Amino acid sequence: MVKISVMYPYAEGKTFNMEYYETKHMPMVAQFLGTNLVKYTIEKGIASGIPNQPLPFMAIGTFYVKSLSDYQAAIAPNRDAIRADFPNYTNITPVILVSEVIK
Amino acid sequence: MVKISVMYPYAEGKTFNMEYYETKHMPMVAQFLGTNLVKYTIEKGIASGIPNQPLPFMAIGTFYVKSLSDYQAAIAPNRDAIRADFPNYTNITPVILVSEVIK
Repeated sequence: MVKISVMYPYAEGKTFNMEYYETKHMPMVAQFLGTNLVKYTIEKGIASGIPNQPLPFMAIGTFYVKSLSDYQAAIAPNRDAIRADFPNYTNITPVILVSEVIK
Repeated sequence: MVKISVMYPYAEGKTFNMEYYETKHMPMVAQFLGTNLVKYTIEKGIASGIPNQPLPFMAIGTFYVKSLSDYQAAIAPNRDAIRADFPNYTNITPVILVSEVIK
């Protein structure tokens, strides 16, 4: 299984509306993915696990999919709609990690 | 539920031995956590999800626990043992994110 993690780095002045993200943005993207999507998760960053270090990420949304190429094919025609929704919940440019589930 | 994500950033010259991590390091830490640990996961970074961007993380290990304070109490007396094991599988200093599971 493949994970696509959309990670929103914390920095001074950055904002993130979790309610909008959970109720509008993530369901919209999930719908684009269809049956390739196994599940998706949302987490809210609380703190760094290392004392005196800043919070690394304000939020992470993760899609678990069966096929990376099917994911890419589903996202491509909807990329503009996804990006146009960003200002509705955040002013952060996300980092995106594609990873393989080992365990 | 609380997630503690131990994230290993990619950079030139950095190495990560996934086999050691999966078979030795993570089981050792999991044992320290006892019944507070709900599950743990391991993922291997493949690529950035954004074209022409470097891989953000080589690997991420995540502990799902019931209580953050119990996690911290369990790790504190074992921190030296955990850190001493780092050179056995990596030369990366991890970033650690504590987050709340929203969905």
